[in-house]
Amino acid sequence: MAIILYDLCARDERIRFSPHCWKIKMALAHKGLPFETRPTPFTKIPEIGGGFSKTVPVIDDGGKLIRESFDIALYLEDAYPDRPSLFKGEGGRAEAKFVESWAITDLHPPLLPLIIRDIHGGLDEENQAYFRESREKRFGKTLEDMQAGRDGLVGAFRDKALAPLRLTFKRQPFLGGDTPTFADYIVFGAFQWARVVSPFPVLEAGDGVSDWFERCLDLHGGIGREMRAAA
Amino acid sequence: MAIILYDLCARDERIRFSPHCWKIKMALAHKGLPFETRPTPFTKIPEIGGGFSKTVPVIDDGGKLIRESFDIALYLEDAYPDRPSLFKGEGGRAEAKFVESWAITDLHPPLLPLIIRDIHGGLDEENQAYFRESREKRFGKTLEDMQAGRDGLVGAFRDKALAPLRLTFKRQPFLGGDTPTFADYIVFGAFQWARVVSPFPVLEAGDGVSDWFERCLDLHGGIGREMRAAA
Repeated sequence: MAIILYDLCARDERIRFSPHCWKIKMALAHKGLPFETRPTPFTKIPEIGGGFSKTVPVIDDGGKLIRESFDIALYLEDAYPDRPSLFKGEGGRAEAKFVESWAITDLHPPLLPLIIRDIHGGLDEENQAYFRESREKRFGKTLEDMQAGRDGLVGAFRDKALAPLRLTFKRQPFLGGDTPTFADYIVFGAFQWARVVSPFPVLEAGDGVSDWFERCLDLHGGIGREMRAAA
Repeated sequence: MAIILYDLCARDERIRFSPHCWKIKMALAHKGLPFETRPTPFTKIPEIGGGFSKTVPVIDDGGKLIRESFDIALYLEDAYPDRPSLFKGEGGRAEAKFVESWAITDLHPPLLPLIIRDIHGGLDEENQAYFRESREKRFGKTLEDMQAGRDGLVGAFRDKALAPLRLTFKRQPFLGGDTPTFADYIVFGAFQWARVVSPFPVLEAGDGVSDWFERCLDLHGGIGREMRAAA
């Protein structure tokens, strides 16, 4: 039985943009596990499993529900040990937590203002209202004000925020080495989010980070690239 | 035969402050390998092995010379596979490169101005001249100017630069998980550098990063803590 993934969707249900859901789609594909997605707008998340989680991704593996992307990856690794490893050992599992922590503290915060109004633009009316209210309360300014400065912010984002990634990809093709680990999917999710919701070029063509992202889009039969980029 | 480590030293040869040499002392202790250090001031590095390396650490393992801290760690892991692992598998080996890249791009640059004049203060006259000239040329200002603003810089250093470490240590005791990997020693080296050369408190007591650093100082019989802190 295929694993079910509750996957955040836009007004157009084919548009799947959640960075955290993308981590899990890549992880499922990496493991070669059949899965089906259930398009889920923000406002329908509370209905999953009768209030099982405040966030997606959530997976349902034969009736067993699991939430939180890192926990889902750990579950998949342990439940399907004979499939290709997401972590390549205990060290990779532990150090991926640092990659995820870095993505939370140093990657998502400067990336979000580059695309936040565009995320809103893709939602239906009910979800736009939810998204605007929750995000404007959290950040203390309007979505429009946040995104307005992006032409001036993107240079520092590329040069400074992406510096540790750029240096890593000078030394090896993936965070996981010659082939990706879940650490790659953690970071991939962020750039795929941007690619799917916004035409704004957060990455510069020819940069090492952009080259790595293109490699990720080609992985696992190109499931990342199949999702159309925002135009 | 004990491995020989060429280890950067101050005017007082007992003071060993190089962050990169500390990575290797911790790695050698982690592996339980006997080693002896050779105190080496900056200006004597070119004499090691007749010009073998521009930097330390360099190790001599039974006549085989190896340079560059990450390469030394890889050598030790592969040459002594039956000893405790420095990486805990292929994933840990690869992802430690991201930790090292992050340390190079996001940790050392904001840490250095907090301690750079104090590094100089511990050197002998010849090495002071070398250090001042090379660093002032590289950074385009005097050591004194660089360090002068540290009271105003340390808050952002703690809050911003250390954020991904802090979040990681909310979730696990070491970057390597329940026990350290070389990734921990990469980061440990930076804070040990600061501890040994400067009385300036780069870490705040009670912070999660400080707690982790204290745990590291206790590792392997306390070889980190045996080196006295600057007063």
